[in-house]
Amino acid sequence: VTVRIEPVLGLPEVVAGEDLVALLAGPLHAMGAAEGDVLVVTQKIVSKAEGRVVPVEGGDARAWIARETIRVVARRGDLLIAETRHGFVCANAGIDASNVDEGTVSLLPEDPDASAERLRSGLAERLGASCGVVVSDTFGRPWRIGVVNVAIGCAGLPAAVDLRGEPDDRGRILETTIVAFADEIAAAGGLVMGKTARVPAALVRGLTIDARPPGRARDLVRPPAEDLFRTGSIEP
Amino acid sequence: VTVRIEPVLGLPEVVAGEDLVALLAGPLHAMGAAEGDVLVVTQKIVSKAEGRVVPVEGGDARAWIARETIRVVARRGDLLIAETRHGFVCANAGIDASNVDEGTVSLLPEDPDASAERLRSGLAERLGASCGVVVSDTFGRPWRIGVVNVAIGCAGLPAAVDLRGEPDDRGRILETTIVAFADEIAAAGGLVMGKTARVPAALVRGLTIDARPPGRARDLVRPPAEDLFRTGSIEP
Repeated sequence: VTVRIEPVLGLPEVVAGEDLVALLAGPLHAMGAAEGDVLVVTQKIVSKAEGRVVPVEGGDARAWIARETIRVVARRGDLLIAETRHGFVCANAGIDASNVDEGTVSLLPEDPDASAERLRSGLAERLGASCGVVVSDTFGRPWRIGVVNVAIGCAGLPAAVDLRGEPDDRGRILETTIVAFADEIAAAGGLVMGKTARVPAALVRGLTIDARPPGRARDLVRPPAEDLFRTGSIEP
Repeated sequence: VTVRIEPVLGLPEVVAGEDLVALLAGPLHAMGAAEGDVLVVTQKIVSKAEGRVVPVEGGDARAWIARETIRVVARRGDLLIAETRHGFVCANAGIDASNVDEGTVSLLPEDPDASAERLRSGLAERLGASCGVVVSDTFGRPWRIGVVNVAIGCAGLPAAVDLRGEPDDRGRILETTIVAFADEIAAAGGLVMGKTARVPAALVRGLTIDARPPGRARDLVRPPAEDLFRTGSIEP
């Protein structure tokens, strides 16, 4: 089956207090959004709608970054790799200054899984069809250059698909494979939601979504006990 | 523009010495593969064709893992996070036992960028059109649960797209954003190339590929000097 990633076009600039459901329902209805489709929306428009764009004094976002950080993971110069309250590990605790007004920065949504679920249920009511929703943000990675979109919020689809116990092509049991399904969808959405193009949402269609129960992006946060990169386990 | 991810269907089991160009040319021709399309192929079929599936004695792959590792990054129990000769940091130096014969494991291709380029140039000759090629593998990530497909080989498209110096939607210059384009394409390919479904290739179409020169997946390896997770910089 072919998977299609369609940009959601024609969205206006999003401001604080905006009803994203109302904003998205029209374009999604016109696109024929249906059960099984997954809407990817950027963190940026969710944060804007939820009033999570905040002023910075003298252009210095460090006070906000400190507020959003629960653990400093690494630091070099101005770059801070921080764990957020949600458990995400990312640059500057997810705070950035792109595509917002001068003198402001955007913070991550308070609870991106809840944001996704509000969008899902609101759109289901308007559209008469329950689409999955992924709230995406671009994260850097250790060891690899560049950012990719990952899921920071998820509703209506499994975030992680656990293939453990399923046979591979040879009938052997796959022992360790969990696929970060919502992250792959977010990355795919990134192909039409460029950082500089005003396309803050995409509809991903034709996915094979199995019967597993829906999950949350928080499920993709590795528990501390399993995290090899939390407690100085790097060999120097 | 809509991006489409089409599975390449009908491929036979790949064996050592197989000519992947000959194998793929038929299905890709039937799909109308054209300039600007990007073929994603799994590491597994490239490794198989290149004879990089090797026997393990007594089911123990550790000798092979040691041979493919140039640096141990982290270890817990049986799990080794290792840097490969290519510079990739991944579980067990990229060696795994899924979808290969009992008693064997697959190693990463010797030079996945060269593998991608051979596929690109061979297919260009057969098809009369130069498609990009991404060789993908599923990598785990620190801090996040699950694997996603990333690019370990790349030809005919930019692997990283450097947006630094381009204006964002507000006309402000984006200072730090490099998008791992080939990784986003690999992850998108993963949506149709399930770990258990016998679909080892996908064609990604409708991408906006700008005029930047083509790059290699090796360009996505973070240089040691920029790597915050190389030298024990984790705070305990």
